[in-house]
Amino acid sequence: MSWLFDPPTATTGPDSRAMAYGDGVFTTAAVRSGAILFRERHIERLQHGCERLAIEPPGQGRIDQLLSRSLSHGTAAAMLKIMAFRAGSKRGYRPSEQDAAILAARCYPLDGVDEWPDLAPLRLGLAALRWAVQPALAGLKHLNRLEQVLAAAEIRSTDDVLCCDTSGQVVSASSANVFAVIDGELLTPPLDTAGVTGVTRAAVSAICRRDAIALRVEPLTHDDLVRCSEMFLTSSRFGIRPVGNHAGRALPIGPVTRDLHRRLLRETPLCAG
Amino acid sequence: MSWLFDPPTATTGPDSRAMAYGDGVFTTAAVRSGAILFRERHIERLQHGCERLAIEPPGQGRIDQLLSRSLSHGTAAAMLKIMAFRAGSKRGYRPSEQDAAILAARCYPLDGVDEWPDLAPLRLGLAALRWAVQPALAGLKHLNRLEQVLAAAEIRSTDDVLCCDTSGQVVSASSANVFAVIDGELLTPPLDTAGVTGVTRAAVSAICRRDAIALRVEPLTHDDLVRCSEMFLTSSRFGIRPVGNHAGRALPIGPVTRDLHRRLLRETPLCAG
Repeated sequence: MSWLFDPPTATTGPDSRAMAYGDGVFTTAAVRSGAILFRERHIERLQHGCERLAIEPPGQGRIDQLLSRSLSHGTAAAMLKIMAFRAGSKRGYRPSEQDAAILAARCYPLDGVDEWPDLAPLRLGLAALRWAVQPALAGLKHLNRLEQVLAAAEIRSTDDVLCCDTSGQVVSASSANVFAVIDGELLTPPLDTAGVTGVTRAAVSAICRRDAIALRVEPLTHDDLVRCSEMFLTSSRFGIRPVGNHAGRALPIGPVTRDLHRRLLRETPLCAG
Repeated sequence: MSWLFDPPTATTGPDSRAMAYGDGVFTTAAVRSGAILFRERHIERLQHGCERLAIEPPGQGRIDQLLSRSLSHGTAAAMLKIMAFRAGSKRGYRPSEQDAAILAARCYPLDGVDEWPDLAPLRLGLAALRWAVQPALAGLKHLNRLEQVLAAAEIRSTDDVLCCDTSGQVVSASSANVFAVIDGELLTPPLDTAGVTGVTRAAVSAICRRDAIALRVEPLTHDDLVRCSEMFLTSSRFGIRPVGNHAGRALPIGPVTRDLHRRLLRETPLCAG
């Protein structure tokens, strides 16, 4: 399980634009029985992220080839990280006109939190750090993640921390998206100021659309969240996990969370083991 | 002229926190006659940046040793880049409790713009992208530089672009700090919302203090700048360079710029050649 690159001779050290400036995107997908969960969504996100940064999106063929090499050693269950970053190793921020993407991929062994069917509730604190409002980068899983690092550094006695932006809107946990049921309505923040539009968040949204489950994407304050009757996090690592304690308040594993957890597992039968 | 690392066996590829998250800082210094200009300021900036990110700052001894190795091949004139980033290669944003810094350094040959005594005026455009307001990271030369990359991608027929933050305050050019003379007063923005507090900006500020030249550090809007009688940029690459054209308006090389340029060269006699 080591990194594979395309092209194999690409610049990947401190001269790479990924390491020098964070000039690229990544995605992390669960692998089960040798298959990548939500494979198409992950690839689309990678390509869309490149487009937003004006990096030439890697074609399906290049990605397929790299992923089949990454999974060729009989990897049954793993987390797969894929990076796509701007080629070039010249000094200076300015990108060149025609920027191909360098691809990198690696499988990691599962660790404790990468367990899907688990409904064990998570404890969620509140980060003091507010994330900056930057519509030009909001939603992207780009490589500039210092705000996530600083928020995650605040995790003490909880599993994760809820993060708001500087305008006071709830964004997400430091490494997972958030959904809440408030006054009987399922809600999730729009992520147009900060944060990452997660693949599992998109999968849950698609299930809601398909199955006619009402889901409103709209700005939420922390005061709104304090009134919720249930809350859950989504992530490619663990699918759906209920929040059992939010900023010191106990929350039940509610019916909406249980229902969506079951529906998501049906989309990903490989995880239901 | 290749990268040197301390420790030599440090993780530096896609598993490094520098490449995965941009979890570190850097500085770029001019080397002349084998000496690093404003050496102490660059080292202090690197150490201070680590402190702000709760990375254990590298000690003077480690830095001195790495820099003498970097310059041991008789490097006369170069640009020296030094990175300090958080050690560790575990997955996940959360840093561990005791985070040493990994150091990396490399000398690059000079290119056209790295010329100090040059008073040739620069042309400055205006970036459409607004930089996000993030006091927790403002001023630091950290490795999350996507906003600079996106701003620099807007450079068309000018040498650089002026960048404002989302609150409308002027921050800097994409890769240099900005000073302007408005109504006879020398001004520079505070950089407490975004941007990088450059070493040459600090050196110019110190000269002003020492020589009793009035310099006000205060927020500036682009409308303020449009009224300036002179403007100059500072950077470790070129020291002081006058702005000869700002958003289409011609500007003279004014007396304040000439005076500070002369005083800065006196601090850095190695460059005056």
